[in-house]
Amino acid sequence: MIRFNCDYSEGAHPLILGKLAQTNLEQLPGYGQDPYCAQAAKLIQQACHTPDAAVHFLSGGTQTNLTVLAALLRPYQCVISADSGHINVHETGAIERTGHRVLTVPNQEGKITAEQISVLCQEHWHDDNPEFAPQPKVVYLSFPTELGTLYSKKELSAIRRACDENNLYLFIDGARLGYGLTAPGNDLTLPELAACCDVFYIGGTKLGALIGEAVVIVNPKLQKDFRYFMKQHGALLAKGRILGIQFLTLFTDDLYLQLGKHANDMAGLIRQACKDAGFAFLCDSPTNQQFPILPKTLLKKLEQLYAFSHIRPIARDQMAIRICTSWATREEDVRQLITDIKRLCGK
Amino acid sequence: MIRFNCDYSEGAHPLILGKLAQTNLEQLPGYGQDPYCAQAAKLIQQACHTPDAAVHFLSGGTQTNLTVLAALLRPYQCVISADSGHINVHETGAIERTGHRVLTVPNQEGKITAEQISVLCQEHWHDDNPEFAPQPKVVYLSFPTELGTLYSKKELSAIRRACDENNLYLFIDGARLGYGLTAPGNDLTLPELAACCDVFYIGGTKLGALIGEAVVIVNPKLQKDFRYFMKQHGALLAKGRILGIQFLTLFTDDLYLQLGKHANDMAGLIRQACKDAGFAFLCDSPTNQQFPILPKTLLKKLEQLYAFSHIRPIARDQMAIRICTSWATREEDVRQLITDIKRLCGK
Amino acid sequence: MIRFNCDYSEGAHPLILGKLAQTNLEQLPGYGQDPYCAQAAKLIQQACHTPDAAVHFLSGGTQTNLTVLAALLRPYQCVISADSGHINVHETGAIERTGHRVLTVPNQEGKITAEQISVLCQEHWHDDNPEFAPQPKVVYLSFPTELGTLYSKKELSAIRRACDENNLYLFIDGARLGYGLTAPGNDLTLPELAACCDVFYIGGTKLGALIGEAVVIVNPKLQKDFRYFMKQHGALLAKGRILGIQFLTLFTDDLYLQLGKHANDMAGLIRQACKDAGFAFLCDSPTNQQFPILPKTLLKKLEQLYAFSHIRPIARDQMAIRICTSWATREEDVRQLITDIKRLCGK
Amino acid sequence: MIRFNCDYSEGAHPLILGKLAQTNLEQLPGYGQDPYCAQAAKLIQQACHTPDAAVHFLSGGTQTNLTVLAALLRPYQCVISADSGHINVHETGAIERTGHRVLTVPNQEGKITAEQISVLCQEHWHDDNPEFAPQPKVVYLSFPTELGTLYSKKELSAIRRACDENNLYLFIDGARLGYGLTAPGNDLTLPELAACCDVFYIGGTKLGALIGEAVVIVNPKLQKDFRYFMKQHGALLAKGRILGIQFLTLFTDDLYLQLGKHANDMAGLIRQACKDAGFAFLCDSPTNQQFPILPKTLLKKLEQLYAFSHIRPIARDQMAIRICTSWATREEDVRQLITDIKRLCGK
Repeated sequence: MIRFNCDYSEGAHPLILGKLAQTNLEQLPGYGQDPYCAQAAKLIQQACHTPDAAVHFLSGGTQTNLTVLAALLRPYQCVISADSGHINVHETGAIERTGHRVLTVPNQEGKITAEQISVLCQEHWHDDNPEFAPQPKVVYLSFPTELGTLYSKKELSAIRRACDENNLYLFIDGARLGYGLTAPGNDLTLPELAACCDVFYIGGTKLGALIGEAVVIVNPKLQKDFRYFMKQHGALLAKGRILGIQFLTLFTDDLYLQLGKHANDMAGLIRQACKDAGFAFLCDSPTNQQFPILPKTLLKKLEQLYAFSHIRPIARDQMAIRICTSWATREEDVRQLITDIKRLCGK
Repeated sequence: MIRFNCDYSEGAHPLILGKLAQTNLEQLPGYGQDPYCAQAAKLIQQACHTPDAAVHFLSGGTQTNLTVLAALLRPYQCVISADSGHINVHETGAIERTGHRVLTVPNQEGKITAEQISVLCQEHWHDDNPEFAPQPKVVYLSFPTELGTLYSKKELSAIRRACDENNLYLFIDGARLGYGLTAPGNDLTLPELAACCDVFYIGGTKLGALIGEAVVIVNPKLQKDFRYFMKQHGALLAKGRILGIQFLTLFTDDLYLQLGKHANDMAGLIRQACKDAGFAFLCDSPTNQQFPILPKTLLKKLEQLYAFSHIRPIARDQMAIRICTSWATREEDVRQLITDIKRLCGK
Repeated sequence: MIRFNCDYSEGAHPLILGKLAQTNLEQLPGYGQDPYCAQAAKLIQQACHTPDAAVHFLSGGTQTNLTVLAALLRPYQCVISADSGHINVHETGAIERTGHRVLTVPNQEGKITAEQISVLCQEHWHDDNPEFAPQPKVVYLSFPTELGTLYSKKELSAIRRACDENNLYLFIDGARLGYGLTAPGNDLTLPELAACCDVFYIGGTKLGALIGEAVVIVNPKLQKDFRYFMKQHGALLAKGRILGIQFLTLFTDDLYLQLGKHANDMAGLIRQACKDAGFAFLCDSPTNQQFPILPKTLLKKLEQLYAFSHIRPIARDQMAIRICTSWATREEDVRQLITDIKRLCGK
Repeated sequence: MIRFNCDYSEGAHPLILGKLAQTNLEQLPGYGQDPYCAQAAKLIQQACHTPDAAVHFLSGGTQTNLTVLAALLRPYQCVISADSGHINVHETGAIERTGHRVLTVPNQEGKITAEQISVLCQEHWHDDNPEFAPQPKVVYLSFPTELGTLYSKKELSAIRRACDENNLYLFIDGARLGYGLTAPGNDLTLPELAACCDVFYIGGTKLGALIGEAVVIVNPKLQKDFRYFMKQHGALLAKGRILGIQFLTLFTDDLYLQLGKHANDMAGLIRQACKDAGFAFLCDSPTNQQFPILPKTLLKKLEQLYAFSHIRPIARDQMAIRICTSWATREEDVRQLITDIKRLCGK
């Protein structure tokens, strides 16, 4: 069984394990106050062209989202998200548990628009009693989205303007950031993305790390007391070193981007094979997640050899699935999948 | 200016004020432990045919909804509601602040269906990892709905069955209950409604009281420790007597239902006048809230004399409004409104 | 049975009931936006010499405390209180439920000192990792305290300085404010008290109103969006008029202070009688709550005629009790109590 | 600089790193559903003699405490803890943020007693209005305590009885469990401890793991839906394998206990040296944390070579410190510290 069902099936990139082993017996301060965390933060500041950003390391995506949103929102404020956003569909109501509504708008291929944001804000502020509804304060979006798609520079700039006009913060969930930055057709650099945000995070768990997400707080007004939020939510690891060491490794010699590109290349091969086989797609993703629609009979046969994620049935006899590659995907496995698709499609 | 914009423009029914004055200097225990609260609870148990129900008195709708849902839900559970439900549109995210998602389904004239509930539950429990989403546990609905409509006995029974099949509690928001029970075409009695619910409340604020909602906890498993929830949310009034005395008055000699019927009668006159004038309606409400769609030019003239609530523009030149009657609406005001409508429509 | 066990045994001052009746059928806007609320706010601003303060009306003490503290604290911050403070002993953990620790210091006759506050703050900020503990941000105190005692102008000024030095807000719980301002020996005026605070509230429930507390937000930085907090916590009454009308009445012709003084006078008579009978006191209170220590045998006899609150046993055969007078206490009842104490003590 | 300031200065035991490397490229299911987690859970069930216990793996102590307490407490309930308990002094109010009061009792050498628990419960339930205070529902204690001390079998059994008599759950924080189980004088086995609890956790972070705590839910009534709580609090790691693999290694061939014993042995040497030097101790700890009281002048010299934690000044010229050993402490470092103590004390 070869797993294409997600991008966290393996452990960590071998360079990370090596660095963890190499530094293992060094005695270091805890709670993210070790030199490796400091070095990793420095590298990230440099990569983002944000020398004054605060960088913090947390262990996973849900934890990061809830901690950041706890820090950004006052109790009566809410976060705007695509209905397909991770905070809305995959976090067991963690944001609501933190006290805040996730105010959703319908996604278009995983994305939301500046106009949707502006309309929501106008509706709120034009009400006779705006205080009867949660006040919009943060826009949350994922880059790439949960459907693998990307915001263009133009789209993101428009969203930034909508945020400025409506006094909103912009928070970008970069759980798969490296896959987005290296995708064919992407026109956003890391510094450009950073310049658009108030806060964003660089995902490690889904891109070569054992665990770890690097939160980058660009807006200086939001940097104060963030460690209180981390500790209060159980997000301040005693051995913070293991997060610092991982991001130090990922941001040395562009490893992070290389791993992202590899996954996209592998996904590109699969995408082409699916197109060649005549499959339609749920959406047009240039990144490591592909969403082809397969005949159920074919799917059943493939699933004897490969693991995929089911998204939803399409008509009676089709199923939209997710095929994920990752930093760890082996080209030989991809080649075999392609061969099997061709074979089973009789092409 | 005559106000038809809501059903809480006046104070309380004179009998209530009289009873408050009459008992004013009696020395009574606090926090709902006085004999008037006990008597009121008894009358409500009798009216509902639920001798073992627990009855508690709170001061307003939002407070009641958040306190009841805090008591019914475990932290990871959510409440299913119409997107038009009061907890979703008019409570500043109070339920989310209490830690719970409001899981909305599209309303049909303010109502939801048993099937919508079942589908949501199936989606939740059929997921490979149901624990990645909040677990549905309570169905919230309003009777009458925020659009003035009513569930039929058949519809409510079907919802009860869906709740039983999916291990859900049913909580009915009866902020305007009296208007629903006495509406033309309503086929549900108070005991039948009570028998369908785990918890519901009987609204006083919008039906003749200064303040006050009577929570009826029918399901004995949910009765334990409810006063802790009330106190913790600031919902246990020191002078609980003022709630007990009001409900005692409302449930003596059917006053509560008489007041409801009066408002419905007044609304019926207005509805007919709107129909006669050729207006369409947002929805077909038999209760004290009417939602006609008026030409903006006409509306502008009427609003020099009357206050209404605006719901939303319809096309370019029409506006859907809400016209509310209440227990306190004077027939002469209604007659004058009707006359003015006729006059301005040139009919 | 004559009740001296609390100060909320009766309804409201007759002038309040009269004004409620007189205005009852006026049609008014809801949610505190009626002219009576505006007038009451104006009178309170004048009485406090704080023309720019925001004034809001809520229904009870626990609700007020939790709503104000929700507005003043960020999620990782805590409130400093006497261990005897109402938020620590009598609110079912409402503040913790709102997400915040109540950081207690031992009380001295119900009071805390500037030095206790400074020591706590030094401990917090001198820690190597202050972010491992909740950050002190608000000082909560009651005037009068839960033990009936009062802060002097000198004590309160010192606390204000400690707050300024440690970047803390000062929030005064004035549930019994009128009893404090009119107590013998009190050297603080309402404007002086207001000038010391960031926020305080003027209690109505325990001083002549049916329900109602008037929150005065003196610090302009804390005024923004307070109505969102009220609505979210179910503290924005639909018929806000009933709060406005009550405070309008209480702040007309000094009624509020007259009622406070009456209760203090009555308490003074009882205090003297207890002293004459040779009873010790838990603390030296000049206000409407008296805490004498009585032999249990005597107490048992008195309790056939009068209701008191038990505080705690003292040695084997004594009991500290609370005797409360209020705006409504009848002098003839006090005289009878004094007579009975004398009689039963054989004096 | 040799660090004795805490027990998490190094990475992980080499066998753990080895096993992580060895399994690194295996493709495994996420979120704790891999075979290593299953095997680790099995080994823990066996070691605890609790075949039906639920075992879950989380990443750190604060996260574990808040997630477990969120699952055990209803919103109005509170947890009883020593004032020195980790949840009270070192978690930034995480439990209060989860909505619950930490009800503290004074510690005696880090411990609480069955009698303290019973007294608190009696006070609660004997109050006329118990619902005015949070309801005690869980007893939290640490084994070993934050001061390195241990509960005896007799003490823990008495606490269990107090819990049973008062309808409380017992939750044991075992962040340093291995150091307790292997301490000289300890008379509790792991199965005995497990049999006493409703829930406890086995700490990995402070005992040889990179990260990780194993929660053991012994009481079957508390097992339901725990994964929802984990996910909601960001405590369900995508690559749960790294927790399973670590605990699998620690519970193979008694590694966990061996590491604990090593630290205790090293601490014993230091304790003896301190005694020989004539130092007093804050408390009498048989485990890896020692709390000697040193002259400040001596401490200053030692701290040029060694890192310790400061606890608090004792008189003018003494300082109580914490000296921590761990699974990773090298005997040669300990010998050198002892030599330096002797040398500097002139003995």
